[in-house]
Amino acid sequence: MTMFGLSENDIEPLVTAIAARDLTRDAQQEVFARAAWTGIAEPGDRLAGVLVERIGAAEALRAMLASPSADSLFALLAGSEVEQDHVTQALERWRPRLDLSVAVNAMRQAARVEARLLVPDDPRWPTGVDDLGPHAPLALWVRGNDGALAALSRSIALVGARAATGYGEHVTMEAAAGLVDRGYAIVSGAAYGIDGMAHRAALASHGQTVAFLAGGVDRFYPSGHDALLTRIVDEGAVISELPCGQAPTKWRFLQRNRLIAAASLATVVVEAGWRSGSLNTAAHASTLGRPLGAVPGPVTSAASAGCHRLIRDFTAVCVTNPDEMAELAPLETAPALFGPGDLDDRSPDRTRLFDAISVRSPRHVADIAARAGLSLDAVRSLLGALELEGEVAERERGWVRVGRDGGAPG
Amino acid sequence: MTMFGLSENDIEPLVTAIAARDLTRDAQQEVFARAAWTGIAEPGDRLAGVLVERIGAAEALRAMLASPSADSLFALLAGSEVEQDHVTQALERWRPRLDLSVAVNAMRQAARVEARLLVPDDPRWPTGVDDLGPHAPLALWVRGNDGALAALSRSIALVGARAATGYGEHVTMEAAAGLVDRGYAIVSGAAYGIDGMAHRAALASHGQTVAFLAGGVDRFYPSGHDALLTRIVDEGAVISELPCGQAPTKWRFLQRNRLIAAASLATVVVEAGWRSGSLNTAAHASTLGRPLGAVPGPVTSAASAGCHRLIRDFTAVCVTNPDEMAELAPLETAPALFGPGDLDDRSPDRTRLFDAISVRSPRHVADIAARAGLSLDAVRSLLGALELEGEVAERERGWVRVGRDGGAPG
Repeated sequence: MTMFGLSENDIEPLVTAIAARDLTRDAQQEVFARAAWTGIAEPGDRLAGVLVERIGAAEALRAMLASPSADSLFALLAGSEVEQDHVTQALERWRPRLDLSVAVNAMRQAARVEARLLVPDDPRWPTGVDDLGPHAPLALWVRGNDGALAALSRSIALVGARAATGYGEHVTMEAAAGLVDRGYAIVSGAAYGIDGMAHRAALASHGQTVAFLAGGVDRFYPSGHDALLTRIVDEGAVISELPCGQAPTKWRFLQRNRLIAAASLATVVVEAGWRSGSLNTAAHASTLGRPLGAVPGPVTSAASAGCHRLIRDFTAVCVTNPDEMAELAPLETAPALFGPGDLDDRSPDRTRLFDAISVRSPRHVADIAARAGLSLDAVRSLLGALELEGEVAERERGWVRVGRDGGAPG
Repeated sequence: MTMFGLSENDIEPLVTAIAARDLTRDAQQEVFARAAWTGIAEPGDRLAGVLVERIGAAEALRAMLASPSADSLFALLAGSEVEQDHVTQALERWRPRLDLSVAVNAMRQAARVEARLLVPDDPRWPTGVDDLGPHAPLALWVRGNDGALAALSRSIALVGARAATGYGEHVTMEAAAGLVDRGYAIVSGAAYGIDGMAHRAALASHGQTVAFLAGGVDRFYPSGHDALLTRIVDEGAVISELPCGQAPTKWRFLQRNRLIAAASLATVVVEAGWRSGSLNTAAHASTLGRPLGAVPGPVTSAASAGCHRLIRDFTAVCVTNPDEMAELAPLETAPALFGPGDLDDRSPDRTRLFDAISVRSPRHVADIAARAGLSLDAVRSLLGALELEGEVAERERGWVRVGRDGGAPG
């Protein structure tokens, strides 16, 4: 028996290893095909998404292995909203990558590093990424534990500049720790700066954390975060849609950002320069309708310019602490909204009455009325109420302030 | 002849001194009555606003001096939306303050310190405050120069915490200097911290600046800003709706804030604690439909918490530099809210240009630009137009006023 022209005896144990669950023979073929497709189509390839959605990954792979013409591939897609030109271009993109031995090697490497492949019907699949539609990942390579995958359903992405400041790192640490305390998992991109601090603080708080990479999960990027990513594999999860052996590229970083935004309930940008890659993640969150927050900082800090830009021009919510970040995506019943509150809880008359009463010089009602610009009756009635509250007292020569509020004019 | 029971010979020179313009006898009575009313009704007293609007200040004062019943006063107000209860209360508020000798003394003190009284029909009246409706000031006591008053029509309020940080002061300095460069006048409250820095930076940039006080303009508050306020009187203007001799109170600070918001095109809060009084100014700006900006800062700084609150909960625009502040109220498209009045049809720019050109002392373009708070280009272009109209001429040592309009500032 063969599978896509390969020996089934070679492939079956490999598929079982990377799927890490019992599968029918059809499901095995589907897993193998999706694994292969992660190496054939670049992340976010809409045509691949449409084709696999329409006829399944296995069928799509078989069709490709049969060296189809653009016409025959277009026929398979009849009725979907794709143009023949795009089909021709897709064929040209995919053909050079149709070497299944590459896919098999990537799977062997995945098995070696204990990476598993999640496909959309896997119960561990992070369903948030389905909101990407035809741009959703065909499969996800994962190293880590199932608890972290499940925690994606209550996760917030904390992202930001590589060139973070001490301020940004401090805020990130407080944010990650505070969100973990409130039951959230922390999603980020494992980069230097804000991302790394977000993961570290989540781990330090014994929270769940998930890192999305732009290259294969077998080779950690950046290499300076080897130890950190190893810890995340042990205690959280590291995810990529690229197969093992693949290096990150600019395109893949941008596509990785869409996964961060889609897999989380909300995205918070902690620090970002005016043209930071984090703004790309923010744009994805916004496009997906996910709540977007940005942390303000000194206007004198270039590392906060991108955050201010998000607040000004992209209607990001200004978030200053973990409570406000959690408010972006409340986990249970929505917390009571913060009222704007009274800027001053005294009534105008009370304020004016207080202004007119001294701590030291007793004053008569008429004097107080003249100073406060209130009627005698109003003064008498307010004084009575305030006396009961212990804020004023009547002395032999008139009324004085007592208690907590004897201070200077505000 | 008597005026309100006082000797007209005593009163007339006093009124002429504080009005600083020629007035008919009726207009003199109105000025005197408004001056008196600023000591009878507390700032923002709606009933006083309605009554004076309805029958004029002089008539209203005469009515009060006749010891009216609540019924007769209510009859005067028939048809306006006031309740009889409120009239009764107003009567009781005002009665203890109907001593005209107090008003006369306040006027004498005003004349001593060269304070003038602006009333709403004065061409120098800052018409922005009329948007306060029945809460508009009945009159304004001013020390300073007409150019600064005219510049209110192109002013931005920079306000903030007394307990400013070095960061806040730095941002305020940049903001005030940058706004002055762009042709704006700076309005603030002369308090320690942000307010003081806003005035100082405006003065240092040779810009116009106006301070609104919560007490009389004869006694500067805070006293530590004596020298600063003296400079503002010399080069800008200090304004209060309270007569000379009156001390600031909590109530008057809050009402002063409404004047700052109303007199400016936009309000920017630079630093503010969670319950800062600056939020009150911001709330007034917002209520009046004036654009509101807030400068973000470190989330770790309590002095920025109020600004972040304004951005989050009160939809203040996040502003990080003078350009973004100017965008709140662009001068080109600024509605002609505040004309210089009916005396002439000059644009604010022309008015300021005229203020800056002398009949006798020729001045160079750069000097005129600095005095007028206009750009060099604007000055050159206006001078060109005015030269064609025969209103200015270039002499060997600079520009002078000529022609019909060579007299006193309008």
